[in-house]
Amino acid sequence: MKVLVTGGAGFLGSHLCERLVADGCEVVAFDNFYTGRAENVAHLEGKIDVVKGDVAEGLPEGKFDEIYSLACPASPVHYGARPIETMKTSVLGMLNILEKARRDGSRVLHASTSEVYGDPLVHPQVESDWGHVNPIGVRACYDEGKRAAETLAADFRRLYGVDVRMVRIFNTYGPRMQPDDGRVISNFIMQALQNKDITIYGDGSQTRSFQYAGDLIEAMRRYMALPKKRIDEFFAAKGLDAPVLNTGNPGEFTISELARETLRQIPTSRSRIVQKPLPKDDPKRRKPDISLAQELLAWQPRVPLAEGLAKTIAYFTLLASGKEI
Amino acid sequence: MKVLVTGGAGFLGSHLCERLVADGCEVVAFDNFYTGRAENVAHLEGKIDVVKGDVAEGLPEGKFDEIYSLACPASPVHYGARPIETMKTSVLGMLNILEKARRDGSRVLHASTSEVYGDPLVHPQVESDWGHVNPIGVRACYDEGKRAAETLAADFRRLYGVDVRMVRIFNTYGPRMQPDDGRVISNFIMQALQNKDITIYGDGSQTRSFQYAGDLIEAMRRYMALPKKRIDEFFAAKGLDAPVLNTGNPGEFTISELARETLRQIPTSRSRIVQKPLPKDDPKRRKPDISLAQELLAWQPRVPLAEGLAKTIAYFTLLASGKEI
Repeated sequence: MKVLVTGGAGFLGSHLCERLVADGCEVVAFDNFYTGRAENVAHLEGKIDVVKGDVAEGLPEGKFDEIYSLACPASPVHYGARPIETMKTSVLGMLNILEKARRDGSRVLHASTSEVYGDPLVHPQVESDWGHVNPIGVRACYDEGKRAAETLAADFRRLYGVDVRMVRIFNTYGPRMQPDDGRVISNFIMQALQNKDITIYGDGSQTRSFQYAGDLIEAMRRYMALPKKRIDEFFAAKGLDAPVLNTGNPGEFTISELARETLRQIPTSRSRIVQKPLPKDDPKRRKPDISLAQELLAWQPRVPLAEGLAKTIAYFTLLASGKEI
Repeated sequence: MKVLVTGGAGFLGSHLCERLVADGCEVVAFDNFYTGRAENVAHLEGKIDVVKGDVAEGLPEGKFDEIYSLACPASPVHYGARPIETMKTSVLGMLNILEKARRDGSRVLHASTSEVYGDPLVHPQVESDWGHVNPIGVRACYDEGKRAAETLAADFRRLYGVDVRMVRIFNTYGPRMQPDDGRVISNFIMQALQNKDITIYGDGSQTRSFQYAGDLIEAMRRYMALPKKRIDEFFAAKGLDAPVLNTGNPGEFTISELARETLRQIPTSRSRIVQKPLPKDDPKRRKPDISLAQELLAWQPRVPLAEGLAKTIAYFTLLASGKEI
């Protein structure tokens, strides 16, 4: 099976490529290397093709059975620095993928995000929630770009029968996250390893759910393995206008708990926990309702936070030591 | 002053072109004639340039002092038939306009919509409301496209200082509306003139606000006449991330009242009022809070519904008679 992974050299893309190779697929990883890194897929050399390019401008030649749409800067520090490119990646990238899939009859998995829920009015978040997003704020390039990409996917499916499925990915972590991406897990680990203050924004009582990358990849593969008919019937029966599926780990942790667990796992750290003001538009609570994924995929997250954190800390420790990884 | 009006042959665009000519501007009306009509600007022949083209693909050559971004199918019957083109018009069209404005130093007025509020949680709608929109529904191509366009405008302004202002236009009516656009006012008038049943969706108790086109054009011109500094300071003081301004008529009418007033003004009609089920995702209530526009522009709607309706009925009567108008 020929598979295209856009954003294939990114954090999640590289885990997916690894899994696809293990599953016997012929893989092309496509990346513009804005947040993707060649090192992320260096261990797959000879096993996958890595092609440099931008989804907003075009896609690799050739016909693919499956396309995984993962290209997009996903952390505020990166998309905030390039808001217009971020919107283009989401909207033009999605357009290019959907047009190609329509021509070639490819099955598509689009990586959407829990950010489409914004600062949610419903807790935990269910797929039928329309979200609550500031369209003109500094995070909008990502949130609204991803919403517009969902709209396009839903329309290509309704209009042309394109077999596109979407996952709304909640906070996901693991090895090959970027140390400088400003996400809470990478921040805390890097701060702890460097003996810097561990920064909590707000009082630390805001909760997050943390999904280990491997759990997400498993959900993606199960989702894509299902026949289109099953997908169509399942989401129609749930009253949803398109196949949008939450994937995440519903286990809730406060930011303070995460800080303490990080320090517990890095006992040599001399870091202290300090508080700073909450940034504008920062979502207060976020927790997935994953009943639909559980029912459709017979799936649930398996990796507990302590275990996933240990693997991630091991990766960052190697990274900080400057060793080849 | 050189002015570009995208969607210049549309319902609102043609009223704006008329006003710009009266104000002594040199006007280029740009339209792809999907919902725009040459007849709408026929009376301006020799006074404006009409250029055929699509904002998603490119814009007319030349430097403009002001650009009015009005191109987009705006009624469900039209955008529903071409959802993907609608999203492209909003997002790629806005990108093209903002890039051009950035190069040329043009001032931009972007026509956004009350649809960015979706099925609103706040009543009446204020500019600080984030909206409540279904990202994967059949109306999303318009609602989410317009939200994404607002995002782009806000980012070009923050990043490059592009002088872009936005109006969120609530229900607007008047001569040169399309008889087949499925909007409630054109529907009711056409049904009454043709002695067909007047169709109310739901029980008719849902309210709408109806702004006469001339009132909106007046607001747009006042808005564009203000210096950038005044705009920046005003919206910053209001705590808004970008200049988004509601324009509409806060006078609320139920759909049933509108149906009765239409029949009162067309006493020869033999139409009866009938009820049909409410379509999916139809917003239940919509009423603008226009305090910001009143304060910033010293403006308020002047034309009462009975008067605006009379002018619109006169237009439709001529249209139905097949006369040149």
